[in-house]
Amino acid sequence: MERFVDVIHKKKIGYELSDSEIENMIHGYCDGTIPDYQMSAMLMAICFNGLSDRELTTLTLAMRDSGQINDLSQIPGIKVDKHSTGGVGDKTTLIIGPVVAACGIPIAKMSGRGLGFTGGTIDKLESIPGFRTDLSNEDFFRAVQTAGICVNGQTADLAPADKLIYALRDVTATVESIPLIAASIMSKKLAAGSDCIVLDVTTGNGAFIKDYEQSLELAQKMVTIGNNAGKTTIAQLTSMDEPLGFAIGNNLEVKEAIDALHGNGPEDLMQVCYSLAAHMISLGKNISYEQAEKEAREAIESGRAWDVFLKMVAGQGGDISYMEHPNTLPQAPIVLEYQSPSDGYITFMDTEGFGNVAGILGAGRSKKEDAVDFTAGIVLQHKINDFVKEGEVLATLYTSDQTRGATALSKIKNCYELSAEPGKPIRLIGDVIR
Amino acid sequence: MERFVDVIHKKKIGYELSDSEIENMIHGYCDGTIPDYQMSAMLMAICFNGLSDRELTTLTLAMRDSGQINDLSQIPGIKVDKHSTGGVGDKTTLIIGPVVAACGIPIAKMSGRGLGFTGGTIDKLESIPGFRTDLSNEDFFRAVQTAGICVNGQTADLAPADKLIYALRDVTATVESIPLIAASIMSKKLAAGSDCIVLDVTTGNGAFIKDYEQSLELAQKMVTIGNNAGKTTIAQLTSMDEPLGFAIGNNLEVKEAIDALHGNGPEDLMQVCYSLAAHMISLGKNISYEQAEKEAREAIESGRAWDVFLKMVAGQGGDISYMEHPNTLPQAPIVLEYQSPSDGYITFMDTEGFGNVAGILGAGRSKKEDAVDFTAGIVLQHKINDFVKEGEVLATLYTSDQTRGATALSKIKNCYELSAEPGKPIRLIGDVIR
Repeated sequence: MERFVDVIHKKKIGYELSDSEIENMIHGYCDGTIPDYQMSAMLMAICFNGLSDRELTTLTLAMRDSGQINDLSQIPGIKVDKHSTGGVGDKTTLIIGPVVAACGIPIAKMSGRGLGFTGGTIDKLESIPGFRTDLSNEDFFRAVQTAGICVNGQTADLAPADKLIYALRDVTATVESIPLIAASIMSKKLAAGSDCIVLDVTTGNGAFIKDYEQSLELAQKMVTIGNNAGKTTIAQLTSMDEPLGFAIGNNLEVKEAIDALHGNGPEDLMQVCYSLAAHMISLGKNISYEQAEKEAREAIESGRAWDVFLKMVAGQGGDISYMEHPNTLPQAPIVLEYQSPSDGYITFMDTEGFGNVAGILGAGRSKKEDAVDFTAGIVLQHKINDFVKEGEVLATLYTSDQTRGATALSKIKNCYELSAEPGKPIRLIGDVIR
Repeated sequence: MERFVDVIHKKKIGYELSDSEIENMIHGYCDGTIPDYQMSAMLMAICFNGLSDRELTTLTLAMRDSGQINDLSQIPGIKVDKHSTGGVGDKTTLIIGPVVAACGIPIAKMSGRGLGFTGGTIDKLESIPGFRTDLSNEDFFRAVQTAGICVNGQTADLAPADKLIYALRDVTATVESIPLIAASIMSKKLAAGSDCIVLDVTTGNGAFIKDYEQSLELAQKMVTIGNNAGKTTIAQLTSMDEPLGFAIGNNLEVKEAIDALHGNGPEDLMQVCYSLAAHMISLGKNISYEQAEKEAREAIESGRAWDVFLKMVAGQGGDISYMEHPNTLPQAPIVLEYQSPSDGYITFMDTEGFGNVAGILGAGRSKKEDAVDFTAGIVLQHKINDFVKEGEVLATLYTSDQTRGATALSKIKNCYELSAEPGKPIRLIGDVIR
């Protein structure tokens, strides 16, 4: 009988763990025979000594196998999933989902809620009056078959080992670990049951992982896991050195997504959407990236993506009259403007800072239990390297609470740096890993 | 309010902790507000990122202050304590204690029991019929005043934080950490209340820390802690690349100590005893090492150390007739001889292996609760670099159990390596750190 303390020691002194040691660890932690205090020591040792690709794949599969694995086989065709590691102003799923579905690829997707400085697709969708994200399995499949797309909340029994381990990591300073982040994300993605996976790995000052090389490492590890698990996986690195698009906050982002689906989206947002959609379409239809990108653009230009979006909203109980007249969506009672303190080029935007300011305004949660104000958030008037004049409005803030508004206004000024000369342009889309 | 998870994170990413963060950690762990799973993650982070001298001193003092601190002020003069990090055949306290006391320095010492492959002074003393090591505080002080020396078992409330932390380290693979080992040892030594501390830091294949450089680091850290805590501290590195002396096992070692106190001790044992005693005497009397060593030798040659030994045994309830006639001490019923398989020089002795074989024979414990057979053990006939002939007895094994004896005999052969040429001589005494 191997003792788990010896397995911890093995990892601590830098040896690779065997497959059965890793599998027993996940089983033992889930069934309570391995106590929290041993698991947290192991997680900390992994933070320092890492995991080989084999160890990482075994760990991820064991976490995937700790709960239900979705069976999407009753939906015909190749199912392609998409996941972002989180950003600020990231409403890409609302746009890409309908675009890809309009190209004939069924989208049966589970998404999450926002936490901390990043938003979550489920919160954004729920800001549409009537929209439901707690569909039963039958209703989920029916919605996919009717509309070609359904974006549902994550069911509780997907990779329960990840939930247990994440809760422990959260209180033991073991969240920041590339292999543990990769295993956490991929265990859920693999359990979600799609055939192919496209990963949007954010990097920069508004991403969880700010360093480009570390983001690249995360992308490579996730692609390795996905491919080892038999799912064709592509990862694209996307800059979060400024918010994506102009809108930050739930129904503000829905409005921007509606504009985008009408062909009027901000340039940076559209560039990210078209590239991610193209990867998904190229995998789902087994065509070239160039051909897939052309199809994605045509889906928007023809209005087919917009039609699919309306079908999705209707299929999940949402009131499409708000979508057809987005100005009727609820608006926050308090609107504040942040004006530029001087002339200059915007050479730095603290993207995580914008996420936090949006949170202060009411758009986000600091704890899972917090309620979200769907109308709160920020609409930027300018992006990085724009030249602005003193007194010009840089951002409009929306909130329901005067005190929150005042706090947000005092914080947002630290999110900008102005200079006499423009800075280096941002490389919006970085490496693509296959 | 600082959250402990942020303190763990600070250590994980390589920053120094503040004094209050360390003190709050020890308080919080002792009062249960910091759970085991956070403490084990912190301990693992310390294993990787270490502790600065300031952090280490603060940690050790906080652990010392978690319980009772002995007050030895009613004993006149400078009290000097001695501690060994553990070895095989290490009966030095039985010899050095009486020698130093015979030179006029009161010895009010607490010692521990053996665990794993190393023996403990308390077990060795208890192998003397009648000898008591559970004296009350009053009896302890009275014994020191009467005999000049008393060696008592460790009371339960000395550095309780160390006991809690050690129990957690034992099951989370965080025992092996130079700073954590240093803090554990020194917290107890500082709580024991002496004015000066002499540390015997063992190194080599029979020590807990086998690497010389790591042993040196441990010695340096313990001396730093002791001096920072206001106790003059000296550490000496001693080789454990062969057992100390010839005898391994409780009453077998008492017999060898009696020989030593009569001036007939093995050369290596006496060299270690005289050097450690000289350090203690030089600190206690504020005289030169050379003068102190001379006094130590005179204490044995004159018979005064032997007289003190007898007084100590009598003062703690032991039957001195056994000491005057050591051949009457109980002897194990089964005596086995291990003979050399070939001619050659003994070029390697697996010292930890000898400790384990002695344990198999009944001399040690693998769990704290195990009983010890005081008569069990090994008497070596040869030391490293001796030339031996095929069939010559290398070691005599003592046990009360035929099966244990057979197992021990099959294992002891792996403890020797014979070669045609002698090996490098052992450097018995290494660096001295002040």
